[in-house]
Amino acid sequence: MIGSINDSPLFPIANPRSIAFFGASNKMTTMGTIQMMSMKELGYEGRVYPIHLTEKEVLGYKAYQHVADLPEVPDLAIIVLPTAIVSRTMDECGRKGIRRAIVISGGFKEVGAEGAKLEDELKKTAVRHGIRFIGPNCIGVANPHLKLNPTPLPYEGQPGFIGMVSQSGSFVTQMFDYLRPMGLGFSAAFSVGNEASIDIVDCLEYFGLCEKTRVIALYIEGIRRGAEFIDMARSIVPKKPVVALYIGGTETGRKAGFSHTGAMAGPDGLYEGIFRQSGVIRAASITELFDFCWTLGNLPAPKGRCVVIETHSGGPGANAADAVGRAGLTLPDLSAATQEKLRPFFPPTASISNPVDMTFSRNSQDLFSAIPQTILEDENAHILMMYLLAQGRMMIRQLTAMNVSEKDAAQQIARMIEMQAESILNLLKASGKPIVGYTYGAPADPLQQKLIAAGFPVFSSPERAAAAINALATYYENKANSH
Amino acid sequence: MIGSINDSPLFPIANPRSIAFFGASNKMTTMGTIQMMSMKELGYEGRVYPIHLTEKEVLGYKAYQHVADLPEVPDLAIIVLPTAIVSRTMDECGRKGIRRAIVISGGFKEVGAEGAKLEDELKKTAVRHGIRFIGPNCIGVANPHLKLNPTPLPYEGQPGFIGMVSQSGSFVTQMFDYLRPMGLGFSAAFSVGNEASIDIVDCLEYFGLCEKTRVIALYIEGIRRGAEFIDMARSIVPKKPVVALYIGGTETGRKAGFSHTGAMAGPDGLYEGIFRQSGVIRAASITELFDFCWTLGNLPAPKGRCVVIETHSGGPGANAADAVGRAGLTLPDLSAATQEKLRPFFPPTASISNPVDMTFSRNSQDLFSAIPQTILEDENAHILMMYLLAQGRMMIRQLTAMNVSEKDAAQQIARMIEMQAESILNLLKASGKPIVGYTYGAPADPLQQKLIAAGFPVFSSPERAAAAINALATYYENKANSH
Repeated sequence: MIGSINDSPLFPIANPRSIAFFGASNKMTTMGTIQMMSMKELGYEGRVYPIHLTEKEVLGYKAYQHVADLPEVPDLAIIVLPTAIVSRTMDECGRKGIRRAIVISGGFKEVGAEGAKLEDELKKTAVRHGIRFIGPNCIGVANPHLKLNPTPLPYEGQPGFIGMVSQSGSFVTQMFDYLRPMGLGFSAAFSVGNEASIDIVDCLEYFGLCEKTRVIALYIEGIRRGAEFIDMARSIVPKKPVVALYIGGTETGRKAGFSHTGAMAGPDGLYEGIFRQSGVIRAASITELFDFCWTLGNLPAPKGRCVVIETHSGGPGANAADAVGRAGLTLPDLSAATQEKLRPFFPPTASISNPVDMTFSRNSQDLFSAIPQTILEDENAHILMMYLLAQGRMMIRQLTAMNVSEKDAAQQIARMIEMQAESILNLLKASGKPIVGYTYGAPADPLQQKLIAAGFPVFSSPERAAAAINALATYYENKANSH
Repeated sequence: MIGSINDSPLFPIANPRSIAFFGASNKMTTMGTIQMMSMKELGYEGRVYPIHLTEKEVLGYKAYQHVADLPEVPDLAIIVLPTAIVSRTMDECGRKGIRRAIVISGGFKEVGAEGAKLEDELKKTAVRHGIRFIGPNCIGVANPHLKLNPTPLPYEGQPGFIGMVSQSGSFVTQMFDYLRPMGLGFSAAFSVGNEASIDIVDCLEYFGLCEKTRVIALYIEGIRRGAEFIDMARSIVPKKPVVALYIGGTETGRKAGFSHTGAMAGPDGLYEGIFRQSGVIRAASITELFDFCWTLGNLPAPKGRCVVIETHSGGPGANAADAVGRAGLTLPDLSAATQEKLRPFFPPTASISNPVDMTFSRNSQDLFSAIPQTILEDENAHILMMYLLAQGRMMIRQLTAMNVSEKDAAQQIARMIEMQAESILNLLKASGKPIVGYTYGAPADPLQQKLIAAGFPVFSSPERAAAAINALATYYENKANSH
């Protein structure tokens, strides 16, 4: 176990000051070019050296015929070349003195015996030069904090706090678009491919020490070093949560995963055991993987599993209550004192049990301030789950019917929504208790967008919200039990 | 069992030529007014008669002091008045000759013994006049085909083919916004509330006969007439699918549901039995309820449960394969002949098993035409599941880097996407086999939007896609077994 992130073999890979890039040209349809384009577009500020036999310049960077010609020894080589010449290129990098690399190219172990031989050769070459590398058959790295994105798809979101380790490149580069509307982003992301040199365990170690990483997300098709994985995860979990999606537990998933990265999947129970022993929270889908990161990275520790639901509609309240029960959470009663305090805010038909259902008919502002504040003061309430409905459109319609101009109505409602958002965010801070929102669809709603931008999770169904709350509660229970 | 939809007690409620409206005024914050505003906004073309003691005009409609003053006997009365005067109002409607009503007002059985008495009185009044009514404690009806929306929230989508029956008003009016981005809408929707006169069974009967309804969706907190429900559903299922979300199976859900509409929830297994006996497909969430409607209402019958996955990324392929297995579907091998036919389209590293994974490196157009066509010709393939990735942004970037102007690039890509969408939709038609898309997020992608607008389902995760395919397969299996 290393003491500083600077000692991780991944440090120069995630934080290179200079890169030798093999496989980019001025032909815009090749993978290498597309990847370099992403890097340029995001604005990586380190030095970039394209290596190309004939071009003088690639995408505006001065090109070099051979890596030996470079004016310095770059921190990192990125190799996107035909399989047959990868090993030779690695050798040239080694001779130049380069000690870290990413091999994007496929055609190795994942295609069978022939490829496995090439991979062995590649490994030997790297070892001979003391090179540690990611891949082959991967997408490599993204570090938005460094504006570093040598992956095919544009990174258009903000840097974030999720440290991603993936045995699929897609779940790095194709997740940029997925995370942005959730207000989430990567602290850094590694696509590890065939793990010929650097593997999941090394990446875990890196993120365990990375200060920008609040939660670690894993996409796993098969773990190669099981015992080391457990030891590493156990050492990290007391400091930050680790969430894992494991594919391969079904016959169908195993078939698909094996041909993908050549990693050996095992029986589902084996992985369940590994995760349980190491305190890793297991997700059942990509949706859950990042939903769990959303609550774990943003919310404080709950004191227990008691969830109070606040709603103004019966159906969504009942649906949430059911989801809470199915997720293994508890629906506590509110204390008599709390119910007394709440009564003045409610019409006579309203329920002051849990779900707290104000019905549709009263001043909706109370829903964002006095009512949730009162609920959160009740010690039976460990977690608050708020139903959010996009009402702006309806309210603007009401105001314009009262002869307020469209423009003034829109402004008034925008101000009201601003206040609602502020009020919820203040409660989150002041109470020290986890609060999440849930709704059905309508991601364009401005209240939701303001909350999400401030790190407040709003889920598109009560089932998603309940599962993510359960992950949060489970993490802190595991942590307490491990002492 | 009635023979014609015109004989349904719900026909004049869903298709009124004229409406007496109680409880709307020119005060814009009351529920009745808000509901009438929605109705006016959508452009209902029937005659609307606000009944108001003092106003001469309400929202631009001529108002009448008493229902007795109306120049005709309206098809329907909508009542949004304080609980205490509802029964008296119902009596006045009866005297006028009105025979159908919707009682929006709450404060009846759902609030306890006092309210139950009022509800009994209301029922007796209605029976005395031969009035059938929806409610009390409901949102009533929406019939977008008739531009009829007397519910609180605006209906901004298209009319559709889902016949919705809900014990929660929210899951009528708050679903308008949810369904629109899926290209879905209601044929009509009934919020049944306390079911004092008209209940779920009556609504099932109506939708069974409604030609605009291709699939029936139910939100259930408790069934009052179990035997009749089973008989009615069994008679409908051979003609069209019925999907149900039942809330109340958990202790927490039961607690919440009971205080909501006063319906008695039962043990989960009881409802499971009711649904199984009647051939109703059970959904586990609102998400599933409408996802199942999406496949059931748009796609042809599959010949079996064998799903072929087409992808250009390993991770999403493995994830989908896993989801397919978990959903109880099968991942068949492609025939040797099909594999031979596919080989020319693939780079050497690609897999021609199932998932069919083309990898990232070849002409992406084949993914939308020749490849899926070849797959669909294989008799092992009953259903095709296509991974869709939003690539427009990346491709425009490539073209502009090749000195194509931004405008021309955008046009070229738009044309390409148009062709891709057409090609997929043609395959759906020509093959007669169900095809669905899946992706991760990115609902703004133009390819997805074009497909969705044409009734092609694109799910935001492979788990959602697999569950909805399973519902489709299950429905046709049930149907075949019931013969």
